[in-house]
Amino acid sequence: MRAPAATRPYNFSAGPAAMPEAVLQRAASEMLDWHGSGMGVMEMSHRGKEFGAIAARAEADLRFLLAVPEHFHILFMQGGGLGENAIVPMNLSRGTSAGFVITGSWSAKSHKEAQRYCKANVVASNAAEQHTRLPDPASWQLSDDASYVHVCTNETIHGIEFQELPDLAALGSRAPLAIDFSSHVASRPVDWQRVGLAFGGAQKNLGPAGLTLVIVRDDLLGHALEICPSAFNYKTVADNQSMYNTPPTWGIYIAGLTFQWLREQSEGALTGVAAMEARNIAKARLLYDFIDGSDFYENKVDPACRSRMNVPFFLHDERRNEAFLTGAREAGLLQLKGHKSVGGMRASLYNAMPLAGVQALVSYMREFERSHA
Amino acid sequence: MRAPAATRPYNFSAGPAAMPEAVLQRAASEMLDWHGSGMGVMEMSHRGKEFGAIAARAEADLRFLLAVPEHFHILFMQGGGLGENAIVPMNLSRGTSAGFVITGSWSAKSHKEAQRYCKANVVASNAAEQHTRLPDPASWQLSDDASYVHVCTNETIHGIEFQELPDLAALGSRAPLAIDFSSHVASRPVDWQRVGLAFGGAQKNLGPAGLTLVIVRDDLLGHALEICPSAFNYKTVADNQSMYNTPPTWGIYIAGLTFQWLREQSEGALTGVAAMEARNIAKARLLYDFIDGSDFYENKVDPACRSRMNVPFFLHDERRNEAFLTGAREAGLLQLKGHKSVGGMRASLYNAMPLAGVQALVSYMREFERSHA
Repeated sequence: MRAPAATRPYNFSAGPAAMPEAVLQRAASEMLDWHGSGMGVMEMSHRGKEFGAIAARAEADLRFLLAVPEHFHILFMQGGGLGENAIVPMNLSRGTSAGFVITGSWSAKSHKEAQRYCKANVVASNAAEQHTRLPDPASWQLSDDASYVHVCTNETIHGIEFQELPDLAALGSRAPLAIDFSSHVASRPVDWQRVGLAFGGAQKNLGPAGLTLVIVRDDLLGHALEICPSAFNYKTVADNQSMYNTPPTWGIYIAGLTFQWLREQSEGALTGVAAMEARNIAKARLLYDFIDGSDFYENKVDPACRSRMNVPFFLHDERRNEAFLTGAREAGLLQLKGHKSVGGMRASLYNAMPLAGVQALVSYMREFERSHA
Repeated sequence: MRAPAATRPYNFSAGPAAMPEAVLQRAASEMLDWHGSGMGVMEMSHRGKEFGAIAARAEADLRFLLAVPEHFHILFMQGGGLGENAIVPMNLSRGTSAGFVITGSWSAKSHKEAQRYCKANVVASNAAEQHTRLPDPASWQLSDDASYVHVCTNETIHGIEFQELPDLAALGSRAPLAIDFSSHVASRPVDWQRVGLAFGGAQKNLGPAGLTLVIVRDDLLGHALEICPSAFNYKTVADNQSMYNTPPTWGIYIAGLTFQWLREQSEGALTGVAAMEARNIAKARLLYDFIDGSDFYENKVDPACRSRMNVPFFLHDERRNEAFLTGAREAGLLQLKGHKSVGGMRASLYNAMPLAGVQALVSYMREFERSHA
């Protein structure tokens, strides 16, 4: 897909978030007639050959991009991350116990919801440090009998990210690791040897809200609680190639276009997710370096675990917040307001955000500081 | 919205199904920039003022179109009809009993799934008649203690439809009526005095797959089972204006455009859903009258309860099926193959199907009969 000339504002929304313009252009052009079929994608039977081809290609492209091993199933589901907070323990816990690493709002919500279905133990928590640093895996209280251990590998609200997945086996646990990778999926490779299940809402890096991605290892299927709805039973969904119930066809189509776009991306000799990772490192470094070099702005997260995707920052003088946001909008920099539970600002730098967008943000921040310091 | 000239084939899919061209045109034109916001709808935070306006208007337009009383909540959810088969009993059954009227595949699935959560009693069934006629409500075995009674008011696969909602109170039951109106919602008015809850997947008459509509009476909220996921607890969803979790924003937007299109439709002095109903009656009559007058085609459903939306029919000589479908495609008449569990053909005549499409279908059927009889 050809990238059109950038004429739109830069959109820093934490999600639903900016999409590649080439994807949007393609979707608009195919809206009334997909590939000469006489139907738009939203109008196709999910059981027809046209949509079958769309879904099969989306899955194959994602498997290639994320190097998903063959013994993992790729499921396209509904309900978002909050839905998965219930669906994961309904499928994996067997009604016994599970461990939770609390690193911010999302993992805390996952822990709370799981208590409906199993004994949900806190393995570690960074609440005492206001979620500004990650608890050292060596300190985690892993029990022998946990059915799984849940980790949110990028906390969207607090801007904190695991730079390496925990190796539960090396820590002496046989429990599978379940990761919520909603807000950094496809921004970096995944070490599948350390993962049993990964889930994420699509609306940050993959596609529209309403599509949920689940990637689950074969041996974890088939153990759902009796009260798990059929539509959310991973084995049922896997056995029916994500078409036990009518899937969110538009979401799968847009995610598929995004996967095609990702495959076309390159950065030096790198392509696909590796190219995105290099670009994401450069984008994040540019913004964090500027913030760290300033006495006007501040990021409170331990530099060792700062998120490449979500950069919360504060003006030292918070009375300037409204002026900052108004000026940003006028400069074509959208949706920079921080999450209400944290305050301040947040710039989300997902795959679709070009380096030029971060450069524009830093230029604006520098100019705002100069005129208001 | 202005209807463009019809240049596309007629799409008779049972769902996901054809959409009004005016809706698709509008969606394509706004894809990269909704109303000068600099963002496409898929890229907007669901908590921002732009999407808030889209969702509020969609809900208000739907409330107007379906004349939904103020003591009913309109919820935009995820998971489709099959998801609701679990979500309804998790919210309404209180773990006691519920009644099910079996009229075809969909109500049978609802009955089976509910058994995970409560005692699911069969109130009546037309299975012995191969789902070709509706059981007379006077014969239903209603018990005093049912938490609710489930009815699928239009069976998409068998093409059978309640022309009037059952009046449970008049039948001596105090149980609220829960209806699955997925495949005829917005095709005719709803008598809300007889309804406690209505649900439907959007992908037939409202919008894209992945959006689920639930309309529920106020007093039925707040009784969910402890094992009901928070994201699917009607009270939680209602208390958060359908934004407890990130809603399927694109689906709500497209449904909203469809509601605007519906409000603009008129048929004589009628507008909105009343206009659609008049048009749907005319469309269905044209097709059923032709089938009934032919010795070549057959519809097996009792004329008193034939669906206006889904018309299954058979060629007496089924060896002609493939030729019929091939010729139909060549004539620009798509997705006429019947559901695999029933066979034969099926023409779905949802709101977006114009009378001209049914006329084209009948012309083709007449010509096929003439040349193959």
